Amino acid sequence: MTAAKFIVIEGLEGAGKSTAIAICQQFLEQHKVDFINVREPGGTPIAEALRTIVKDNHGEQIASETELLLMYAARSQLLHNVIRPALAKGQWVLGDRHNLSSQAYQGGGREIAATTLDSLANIVLKGLKPDLTIYLDIEPAVGLARAKGRGELDRIEQQALSFFERTRARYLELAEYDNTIKTVNAGQSMEVVHQDIITVLEQFMKSNN
Amino acid sequence: MTAAKFIVIEGLEGAGKSTAIAICQQFLEQHKVDFINVREPGGTPIAEALRTIVKDNHGEQIASETELLLMYAARSQLLHNVIRPALAKGQWVLGDRHNLSSQAYQGGGREIAATTLDSLANIVLKGLKPDLTIYLDIEPAVGLARAKGRGELDRIEQQALSFFERTRARYLELAEYDNTIKTVNAGQSMEVVHQDIITVLEQFMKSNN
Ligand SMILES: Nc1ncnc2c1ncn2[C@@H]1O[C@H](COP(=O)(O)OP(=O)(O)O)[C@@H](O)[C@H]1O
Ligand SMILES: Nc1ncnc2c1ncn2[C@@H]1O[C@H](COP(=O)(O)OP(=O)(O)O)[C@@H](O)[C@H]1O
Ligand SMILES: [Mg+2]
Ligand SMILES: [Mg+2]
Repeated sequence: MTAAKFIVIEGLEGAGKSTAIAICQQFLEQHKVDFINVREPGGTPIAEALRTIVKDNHGEQIASETELLLMYAARSQLLHNVIRPALAKGQWVLGDRHNLSSQAYQGGGREIAATTLDSLANIVLKGLKPDLTIYLDIEPAVGLARAKGRGELDRIEQQALSFFERTRARYLELAEYDNTIKTVNAGQSMEVVHQDIITVLEQFMKSNN
Repeated sequence: MTAAKFIVIEGLEGAGKSTAIAICQQFLEQHKVDFINVREPGGTPIAEALRTIVKDNHGEQIASETELLLMYAARSQLLHNVIRPALAKGQWVLGDRHNLSSQAYQGGGREIAATTLDSLANIVLKGLKPDLTIYLDIEPAVGLARAKGRGELDRIEQQALSFFERTRARYLELAEYDNTIKTVNAGQSMEVVHQDIITVLEQFMKSNN
Protein backbone atom coordinates (compact mmCIF):
# COMPACT_ATOMS: atom_id res chain seq x y z
CA MET A 1 0.00 0.00 0.00
CA THR A 2 1.40 3.38 -0.90
CA ALA A 3 -0.89 6.30 -0.03
CA ALA A 4 -3.44 6.62 2.75
CA LYS A 5 -6.94 5.57 1.71
CA PHE A 6 -10.36 7.11 2.20
CA ILE A 7 -13.07 4.50 2.87
CA VAL A 8 -16.73 5.46 3.22
CA ILE A 9 -19.78 3.57 4.47
CA GLU A 10 -23.08 4.60 2.91
CA GLY A 11 -26.75 3.64 3.12
CA LEU A 12 -30.20 4.62 4.37
CA GLU A 13 -31.06 5.07 8.06
CA GLY A 14 -30.86 1.76 9.87
CA ALA A 15 -28.99 0.11 6.99
CA GLY A 16 -26.27 -0.79 9.48
CA LYS A 17 -23.63 1.88 8.83
CA SER A 18 -22.55 2.22 12.47
CA THR A 19 -22.35 -1.56 12.71
CA ALA A 20 -20.27 -1.69 9.51
CA ILE A 21 -17.95 1.05 10.78
CA ALA A 22 -17.17 -1.09 13.83
CA ILE A 23 -16.36 -4.03 11.53
CA CYS A 24 -14.07 -1.87 9.37
CA GLN A 25 -12.31 -0.45 12.43
CA GLN A 26 -11.54 -3.92 13.70
CA PHE A 27 -10.33 -4.94 10.25
CA LEU A 28 -8.02 -1.91 9.93
CA GLU A 29 -6.64 -2.43 13.42
CA GLN A 30 -5.87 -6.06 12.58
CA HIS A 31 -4.02 -4.83 9.50
CA LYS A 32 -2.09 -2.28 11.60
CA VAL A 33 -3.46 0.62 9.60
CA ASP A 34 -3.30 4.08 11.21
CA PHE A 35 -6.73 5.64 10.65
CA ILE A 36 -9.24 8.20 11.93
CA ASN A 37 -13.04 8.09 12.03
CA VAL A 38 -15.24 10.85 10.67
CA ARG A 39 -18.97 11.23 10.16
CA GLU A 40 -21.03 13.51 7.95
CA PRO A 41 -22.44 15.95 8.46
CA GLY A 42 -20.12 16.73 11.36
CA GLY A 43 -16.59 16.21 12.58
CA THR A 44 -15.50 19.78 13.32
CA PRO A 45 -17.11 22.29 15.74
CA ILE A 46 -18.74 24.21 12.88
CA ALA A 47 -19.76 21.06 11.00
CA GLU A 48 -21.34 19.61 14.17
CA ALA A 49 -23.28 22.86 14.65
CA LEU A 50 -24.51 22.47 11.07
CA ARG A 51 -25.45 18.83 11.76
CA THR A 52 -27.67 20.01 14.61
CA ILE A 53 -29.31 22.61 12.38
CA VAL A 54 -29.99 20.08 9.62
CA LYS A 55 -31.38 17.39 11.92
CA ASP A 56 -33.65 19.67 13.96
CA ASN A 57 -37.14 20.89 13.28
CA HIS A 58 -36.97 24.62 13.95
CA GLY A 59 -40.58 25.69 13.62
CA GLU A 60 -39.28 26.83 10.24
CA GLN A 61 -39.29 24.96 6.95
CA ILE A 62 -35.78 24.27 5.63
CA ALA A 63 -35.71 24.90 1.87
CA SER A 64 -34.19 22.04 -0.14
CA GLU A 65 -31.44 24.33 -1.39
CA THR A 66 -30.62 25.42 2.16
CA GLU A 67 -30.32 21.79 3.27
CA LEU A 68 -28.12 21.07 0.28
CA LEU A 69 -25.81 24.03 0.94
CA LEU A 70 -25.52 23.17 4.63
CA MET A 71 -24.50 19.61 3.80
CA TYR A 72 -21.77 20.88 1.49
CA ALA A 73 -20.69 23.57 3.98
CA ALA A 74 -20.21 20.88 6.64
CA ARG A 75 -18.39 18.68 4.12
CA SER A 76 -16.14 21.57 3.09
CA GLN A 77 -15.16 22.18 6.71
CA LEU A 78 -14.48 18.49 7.38
CA LEU A 79 -12.43 18.07 4.21
CA HIS A 80 -10.41 21.21 4.84
CA ASN A 81 -9.69 20.75 8.54
CA VAL A 82 -9.76 16.98 9.06
CA ILE A 83 -9.84 14.67 6.00
CA ARG A 84 -7.19 16.30 3.82
CA PRO A 85 -4.72 16.87 6.69
CA ALA A 86 -5.12 13.24 7.82
CA LEU A 87 -4.56 11.81 4.32
CA ALA A 88 -1.58 14.13 3.86
CA LYS A 89 -0.04 12.71 7.07
CA GLY A 90 -0.58 9.16 5.83
CA GLN A 91 -3.58 8.40 8.04
CA TRP A 92 -6.47 6.52 6.49
CA VAL A 93 -9.93 7.99 6.88
CA LEU A 94 -13.01 5.90 7.66
CA GLY A 95 -16.15 7.88 6.94
CA ASP A 96 -19.78 7.42 8.01
CA ARG A 97 -21.41 8.98 4.89
CA HIS A 98 -19.84 11.37 2.36
CA ASN A 99 -20.73 12.97 -0.98
CA LEU A 100 -22.75 9.97 -2.18
CA SER A 101 -25.28 10.73 0.56
CA SER A 102 -25.92 14.17 -0.95
CA GLN A 103 -26.26 12.68 -4.40
CA ALA A 104 -28.76 10.11 -3.10
CA TYR A 105 -30.71 12.17 -0.52
CA GLN A 106 -30.66 15.64 -2.06
CA GLY A 107 -30.45 14.45 -5.68
CA GLY A 108 -32.71 11.39 -5.47
CA GLY A 109 -34.86 12.07 -2.40
CA ARG A 110 -35.31 15.84 -2.83
CA GLU A 111 -35.07 15.65 -6.63
CA ILE A 112 -32.47 18.42 -6.92
CA ALA A 113 -30.88 18.48 -10.39
CA ALA A 114 -27.67 16.46 -10.83
CA THR A 115 -26.01 19.50 -12.46
CA THR A 116 -26.61 21.46 -9.24
CA LEU A 117 -25.02 18.71 -7.18
CA ASP A 118 -22.12 18.48 -9.59
CA SER A 119 -21.40 22.19 -9.35
CA LEU A 120 -21.32 22.01 -5.55
CA ALA A 121 -19.16 18.90 -5.62
CA ASN A 122 -16.70 20.74 -7.88
CA ILE A 123 -16.52 23.69 -5.50
CA VAL A 124 -16.07 21.59 -2.36
CA LEU A 125 -14.38 18.31 -3.26
CA LYS A 126 -11.93 19.62 -5.86
CA GLY A 127 -11.46 16.12 -7.21
CA LEU A 128 -11.13 14.25 -3.90
CA LYS A 129 -13.03 10.95 -4.03
CA PRO A 130 -13.20 7.96 -1.67
CA ASP A 131 -10.97 5.05 -2.70
CA LEU A 132 -13.69 2.65 -1.58
CA THR A 133 -17.36 3.11 -0.71
CA ILE A 134 -19.36 0.28 0.83
CA TYR A 135 -23.03 0.88 0.11
CA LEU A 136 -25.35 -1.04 2.44
CA ASP A 137 -28.52 -1.60 0.46
CA ILE A 138 -31.73 -1.94 2.46
CA GLU A 139 -35.48 -1.62 1.88
CA PRO A 140 -36.44 1.73 3.42
CA ALA A 141 -39.19 0.25 5.60
CA VAL A 142 -36.79 -2.31 7.05
CA GLY A 143 -34.08 0.28 7.73
CA LEU A 144 -36.53 2.74 9.32
CA ALA A 145 -37.94 0.02 11.56
CA ARG A 146 -34.38 -0.71 12.75
CA ALA A 147 -33.63 3.02 13.23
CA LYS A 148 -36.83 3.45 15.27
CA GLY A 149 -35.41 0.93 17.72
CA ARG A 150 -32.77 3.58 18.56
CA GLY A 151 -35.39 6.11 19.71
CA GLU A 152 -36.92 9.33 18.36
CA LEU A 153 -36.60 9.91 14.61
CA ASP A 154 -34.91 13.17 13.54
CA ARG A 155 -36.17 15.58 10.86
CA ILE A 156 -34.70 13.59 7.98
CA GLU A 157 -35.72 10.20 9.36
CA GLN A 158 -39.29 11.58 9.48
CA GLN A 159 -39.52 11.98 5.69
CA ALA A 160 -42.12 9.97 3.75
CA LEU A 161 -41.30 6.44 2.59
CA SER A 162 -41.40 7.65 -1.05
CA PHE A 163 -38.51 10.01 -0.22
CA PHE A 164 -36.39 7.04 0.88
CA GLU A 165 -37.49 4.97 -2.12
CA ARG A 166 -36.15 7.71 -4.41
CA THR A 167 -32.99 7.96 -2.32
CA ARG A 168 -32.39 4.21 -2.50
CA ALA A 169 -33.02 4.15 -6.26
CA ARG A 170 -30.38 6.86 -6.75
CA TYR A 171 -27.88 5.01 -4.54
CA LEU A 172 -28.35 1.86 -6.65
CA GLU A 173 -28.07 3.78 -9.90
CA LEU A 174 -24.85 5.52 -8.87
CA ALA A 175 -23.33 2.30 -7.52
CA GLU A 176 -23.96 0.59 -10.84
CA TYR A 177 -21.77 3.01 -12.77
CA ASP A 178 -18.92 3.45 -10.29
CA ASN A 179 -16.74 0.47 -9.52
CA THR A 180 -15.27 2.06 -6.39
CA ILE A 181 -18.75 1.59 -4.85
CA LYS A 182 -19.41 -1.94 -3.60
CA THR A 183 -23.01 -2.83 -2.80
CA VAL A 184 -23.72 -5.14 0.14
CA ASN A 185 -27.20 -6.57 0.71
CA ALA A 186 -27.89 -5.21 4.19
CA GLY A 187 -31.21 -7.02 4.49
CA GLN A 188 -29.35 -10.22 5.34
CA SER A 189 -28.52 -11.39 8.85
CA MET A 190 -25.80 -9.52 10.76
CA GLU A 191 -23.43 -12.47 10.34
CA VAL A 192 -23.77 -12.58 6.56
CA VAL A 193 -23.50 -8.78 6.21
CA HIS A 194 -20.38 -8.92 8.41
CA GLN A 195 -18.83 -11.54 6.15
CA ASP A 196 -19.73 -9.62 2.96
CA ILE A 197 -18.06 -6.48 4.34
CA ILE A 198 -14.89 -8.40 5.21
CA THR A 199 -14.82 -9.87 1.70
CA VAL A 200 -15.03 -6.38 0.17
CA LEU A 201 -12.27 -5.10 2.46
CA GLU A 202 -10.00 -8.05 1.69
CA GLN A 203 -10.43 -7.54 -2.04
CA PHE A 204 -9.69 -3.84 -1.61
CA MET A 205 -6.48 -4.55 0.33
CA LYS A 206 -5.39 -7.10 -2.26
CA SER A 207 -6.04 -4.77 -5.23
CA ASN A 208 -3.97 -2.06 -3.51
CA ASN A 209 -1.06 -4.26 -2.63
CA MET B 1 -46.28 51.52 -8.91
CA THR B 2 -47.37 48.03 -9.78
CA ALA B 3 -45.40 45.26 -8.06
CA ALA B 4 -43.65 45.29 -4.71
CA LYS B 5 -40.00 46.28 -4.91
CA PHE B 6 -36.83 44.87 -3.39
CA ILE B 7 -34.38 47.58 -2.31
CA VAL B 8 -30.95 46.73 -0.92
CA ILE B 9 -28.32 48.80 0.87
CA GLU B 10 -24.72 47.65 0.35
CA GLY B 11 -21.24 48.69 1.40
CA LEU B 12 -18.24 47.93 3.60
CA GLU B 13 -18.40 47.88 7.41
CA GLY B 14 -19.01 51.38 8.74
CA ALA B 15 -20.05 52.67 5.32
CA GLY B 16 -23.32 53.80 6.89
CA LYS B 17 -25.73 51.02 5.87
CA SER B 18 -27.72 51.05 9.12
CA THR B 19 -27.93 54.82 8.89
CA ALA B 20 -29.09 54.57 5.26
CA ILE B 21 -31.71 51.94 6.17
CA ALA B 22 -33.22 54.40 8.67
CA ILE B 23 -33.37 57.04 5.93
CA CYS B 24 -35.05 54.62 3.50
CA GLN B 25 -37.55 53.52 6.13
CA GLN B 26 -38.61 57.07 6.77
CA PHE B 27 -38.86 57.70 3.03
CA LEU B 28 -41.03 54.62 2.44
CA GLU B 29 -43.27 55.50 5.38
CA GLN B 30 -43.77 58.99 3.98
CA HIS B 31 -44.74 57.40 0.67
CA LYS B 32 -47.19 55.06 2.45
CA VAL B 33 -45.36 51.98 1.21
CA ASP B 34 -45.99 48.72 3.09
CA PHE B 35 -42.53 47.17 3.63
CA ILE B 36 -40.48 44.83 5.77
CA ASN B 37 -36.83 45.00 6.84
CA VAL B 38 -34.38 42.14 6.41
CA ARG B 39 -30.65 41.78 6.93
CA GLU B 40 -28.10 39.30 5.59
CA PRO B 41 -26.89 36.95 6.70
CA GLY B 42 -29.92 36.44 8.96
CA GLY B 43 -33.64 37.04 9.15
CA THR B 44 -34.92 33.54 9.98
CA PRO B 45 -34.04 31.34 12.99
CA ILE B 46 -31.74 29.16 10.87
CA ALA B 47 -30.22 32.10 9.00
CA GLU B 48 -29.52 33.90 12.31
CA ALA B 49 -27.81 30.75 13.62
CA LEU B 50 -25.68 30.77 10.46
CA ARG B 51 -24.91 34.47 10.96
CA THR B 52 -23.53 33.66 14.41
CA ILE B 53 -21.39 30.84 12.98
CA VAL B 54 -19.97 33.07 10.23
CA LYS B 55 -19.19 36.03 12.51
CA ASP B 56 -17.58 34.03 15.32
CA ASN B 57 -14.04 32.78 15.72
CA HIS B 58 -14.43 29.13 16.72
CA GLY B 59 -10.88 28.07 17.45
CA GLU B 60 -11.27 26.55 13.97
CA GLN B 61 -10.37 28.06 10.63
CA ILE B 62 -13.41 28.57 8.37
CA ALA B 63 -12.49 27.54 4.82
CA SER B 64 -13.40 30.15 2.17
CA GLU B 65 -15.77 27.69 0.51
CA THR B 66 -17.51 26.98 3.82
CA GLU B 67 -18.02 30.69 4.43
CA LEU B 68 -19.36 31.06 0.90
CA LEU B 69 -21.81 28.16 1.25
CA LEU B 70 -23.04 29.39 4.63
CA MET B 71 -23.75 32.84 3.19
CA TYR B 72 -25.80 31.28 0.39
CA ALA B 73 -27.53 28.86 2.78
CA ALA B 74 -28.65 31.80 4.92
CA ARG B 75 -29.72 33.70 1.79
CA SER B 76 -31.66 30.69 0.53
CA GLN B 77 -33.58 30.44 3.80
CA LEU B 78 -34.35 34.17 3.88
CA LEU B 79 -35.50 34.22 0.26
CA HIS B 80 -37.66 31.15 0.67
CA ASN B 81 -39.31 31.98 3.98
CA VAL B 82 -39.33 35.79 4.09
CA ILE B 83 -38.44 37.76 0.94
CA ARG B 84 -40.44 35.86 -1.69
CA PRO B 85 -43.58 35.55 0.50
CA ALA B 86 -43.45 39.29 1.29
CA LEU B 87 -43.06 40.34 -2.35
CA ALA B 88 -45.85 37.93 -3.33
CA LYS B 89 -48.16 39.65 -0.82
CA GLY B 90 -47.26 43.07 -2.24
CA GLN B 91 -44.94 44.09 0.59
CA TRP B 92 -41.72 45.84 -0.35
CA VAL B 93 -38.49 44.48 1.08
CA LEU B 94 -35.70 46.71 2.41
CA GLY B 95 -32.50 44.71 2.77
CA ASP B 96 -29.27 45.34 4.69
CA ARG B 97 -26.92 43.48 2.29
CA HIS B 98 -27.78 40.80 -0.30
CA ASN B 99 -26.06 38.86 -3.10
CA LEU B 100 -23.77 41.76 -4.05
CA SER B 101 -22.05 41.33 -0.67
CA SER B 102 -21.07 37.76 -1.60
CA GLN B 103 -19.82 38.90 -4.98
CA ALA B 104 -17.73 41.62 -3.34
CA TYR B 105 -16.54 39.89 -0.13
CA GLN B 106 -16.22 36.26 -1.25
CA GLY B 107 -15.48 37.08 -4.91
CA GLY B 108 -13.32 40.20 -4.46
CA GLY B 109 -12.06 39.86 -0.87
CA ARG B 110 -11.55 36.09 -0.77
CA GLU B 111 -10.78 35.85 -4.50
CA ILE B 112 -13.24 33.01 -5.16
CA ALA B 113 -13.88 32.57 -8.89
CA ALA B 114 -16.83 34.47 -10.35
CA THR B 115 -18.05 31.25 -12.02
CA THR B 116 -18.32 29.65 -8.57
CA LEU B 117 -20.37 32.57 -7.30
CA ASP B 118 -22.54 32.50 -10.40
CA SER B 119 -23.35 28.82 -9.97
CA LEU B 120 -24.42 29.41 -6.35
CA ALA B 121 -26.44 32.46 -7.33
CA ASN B 122 -28.24 30.35 -9.94
CA ILE B 123 -29.07 27.67 -7.38
CA VAL B 124 -30.31 30.07 -4.72
CA LEU B 125 -31.66 33.22 -6.37
CA LYS B 126 -33.36 31.61 -9.37
CA GLY B 127 -33.42 34.94 -11.17
CA LEU B 128 -34.60 37.13 -8.27
CA LYS B 129 -32.69 40.42 -8.25
CA PRO B 130 -33.11 43.65 -6.27
CA ASP B 131 -34.95 46.40 -8.15
CA LEU B 132 -32.60 48.94 -6.62
CA THR B 133 -29.29 48.66 -4.78
CA ILE B 134 -27.73 51.67 -3.08
CA TYR B 135 -24.00 51.06 -2.74
CA LEU B 136 -22.35 53.26 -0.12
CA ASP B 137 -18.77 53.66 -1.25
CA ILE B 138 -16.21 54.28 1.46
CA GLU B 139 -12.45 53.96 1.91
CA PRO B 140 -11.95 50.81 4.00
CA ALA B 141 -9.84 52.57 6.66
CA VAL B 142 -12.51 55.24 7.14
CA GLY B 143 -15.33 52.69 7.37
CA LEU B 144 -13.42 50.46 9.78
CA ALA B 145 -12.62 53.43 12.01
CA ARG B 146 -16.35 54.21 12.16
CA ALA B 147 -17.22 50.55 12.81
CA LYS B 148 -14.66 50.40 15.64
CA GLY B 149 -16.63 53.14 17.36
CA ARG B 150 -19.43 50.55 17.76
CA GLY B 151 -17.23 48.18 19.82
CA GLU B 152 -15.40 44.88 19.26
CA LEU B 153 -14.75 43.89 15.65
CA ASP B 154 -16.16 40.50 14.52
CA ARG B 155 -14.27 37.83 12.54
CA ILE B 156 -14.93 39.47 9.17
CA GLU B 157 -14.25 43.00 10.42
CA GLN B 158 -10.83 41.72 11.63
CA GLN B 159 -9.63 40.92 8.08
CA ALA B 160 -6.60 42.78 6.69
CA LEU B 161 -7.08 46.13 4.98
CA SER B 162 -6.03 44.54 1.66
CA PHE B 163 -9.07 42.22 1.94
CA PHE B 164 -11.39 45.24 2.14
CA GLU B 165 -9.52 47.00 -0.67
CA ARG B 166 -10.24 44.02 -2.94
CA THR B 167 -13.84 43.95 -1.72
CA ARG B 168 -14.33 47.63 -2.45
CA ALA B 169 -12.72 47.33 -5.91
CA ARG B 170 -15.18 44.51 -6.76
CA TYR B 171 -18.17 46.55 -5.51
CA LEU B 172 -17.12 49.45 -7.74
CA GLU B 173 -16.55 47.18 -10.73
CA LEU B 174 -19.95 45.50 -10.40
CA ALA B 175 -21.74 48.82 -9.84
CA GLU B 176 -20.24 50.19 -13.04
CA TYR B 177 -21.88 47.54 -15.21
CA ASP B 178 -25.29 47.30 -13.51
CA ASN B 179 -27.56 50.31 -13.68
CA THR B 180 -29.80 49.04 -10.88
CA ILE B 181 -26.85 49.74 -8.55
CA LYS B 182 -26.51 53.41 -7.56
CA THR B 183 -23.23 54.43 -5.95
CA VAL B 184 -23.28 57.06 -3.21
CA ASN B 185 -20.05 58.59 -1.90
CA ALA B 186 -20.33 57.63 1.76
CA GLY B 187 -17.19 59.56 2.71
CA GLN B 188 -19.18 62.78 2.69
CA SER B 189 -20.88 64.33 5.70
CA MET B 190 -24.02 62.63 7.04
CA GLU B 191 -26.17 65.45 5.67
CA VAL B 192 -24.85 65.14 2.13
CA VAL B 193 -25.05 61.33 2.16
CA HIS B 194 -28.64 61.64 3.44
CA GLN B 195 -29.52 63.97 0.58
CA ASP B 196 -27.85 61.74 -2.04
CA ILE B 197 -29.85 58.74 -0.81
CA ILE B 198 -33.11 60.69 -1.00
CA THR B 199 -32.24 61.77 -4.55
CA VAL B 200 -31.67 58.12 -5.58
CA LEU B 201 -34.96 57.05 -3.96
CA GLU B 202 -36.91 59.86 -5.61
CA GLN B 203 -35.52 58.96 -9.02
CA PHE B 204 -36.39 55.33 -8.40
CA MET B 205 -39.99 56.17 -7.45
CA LYS B 206 -40.34 58.41 -10.50
CA SER B 207 -38.98 55.81 -12.92
CA ASN B 208 -41.44 53.26 -11.52
CA ASN B 209 -44.44 55.50 -11.67
N1 LIG C 1 -28.00 -6.93 9.26
C1 LIG C 1 -28.75 -6.54 10.29
N2 LIG C 1 -29.85 -7.22 10.66
C2 LIG C 1 -30.61 -6.80 11.67
N3 LIG C 1 -30.37 -5.72 12.40
C3 LIG C 1 -29.29 -4.98 12.09
C4 LIG C 1 -28.41 -5.35 11.03
N4 LIG C 1 -27.43 -4.41 10.95
C5 LIG C 1 -27.67 -3.51 11.92
N5 LIG C 1 -28.78 -3.87 12.62
C6 LIG C 1 -29.38 -3.13 13.75
O1 LIG C 1 -30.14 -2.06 13.19
C7 LIG C 1 -30.00 -0.88 14.00
C8 LIG C 1 -29.45 0.23 13.13
O2 LIG C 1 -28.10 -0.11 12.74
P1 LIG C 1 -26.99 1.01 12.60
O3 LIG C 1 -25.70 0.33 12.37
O4 LIG C 1 -27.11 1.99 13.74
O5 LIG C 1 -27.51 1.67 11.25
P2 LIG C 1 -27.16 3.10 10.65
O6 LIG C 1 -25.89 3.58 11.30
O7 LIG C 1 -26.99 2.82 9.18
O8 LIG C 1 -28.35 3.99 10.90
C9 LIG C 1 -29.09 -1.26 15.16
O9 LIG C 1 -29.91 -1.55 16.25
C10 LIG C 1 -28.33 -2.47 14.65
O10 LIG C 1 -27.93 -3.31 15.68
N1 LIG D 1 -21.53 59.90 6.45
C1 LIG D 1 -21.06 59.62 7.68
N2 LIG D 1 -20.08 60.36 8.25
C2 LIG D 1 -19.63 60.07 9.49
N3 LIG D 1 -20.07 59.08 10.25
C3 LIG D 1 -21.04 58.28 9.74
C4 LIG D 1 -21.59 58.51 8.43
N4 LIG D 1 -22.53 57.55 8.21
C5 LIG D 1 -22.57 56.77 9.31
N5 LIG D 1 -21.68 57.21 10.24
C6 LIG D 1 -21.41 56.65 11.54
O1 LIG D 1 -20.53 55.54 11.34
C7 LIG D 1 -20.88 54.46 12.17
C8 LIG D 1 -21.22 53.23 11.34
O2 LIG D 1 -22.40 53.48 10.57
P1 LIG D 1 -23.44 52.33 10.28
O3 LIG D 1 -24.65 52.96 9.64
O4 LIG D 1 -23.65 51.50 11.51
O5 LIG D 1 -22.58 51.50 9.20
P2 LIG D 1 -22.80 50.04 8.67
O6 LIG D 1 -24.19 49.62 9.04
O7 LIG D 1 -22.57 50.17 7.18
O8 LIG D 1 -21.71 49.21 9.32
C9 LIG D 1 -22.06 54.92 13.02
O9 LIG D 1 -21.56 55.39 14.23
C10 LIG D 1 -22.65 56.07 12.19
O10 LIG D 1 -23.31 57.04 13.00
MG1 LIG E 1 -25.23 5.28 12.25
MG1 LIG F 1 -25.12 48.05 9.96
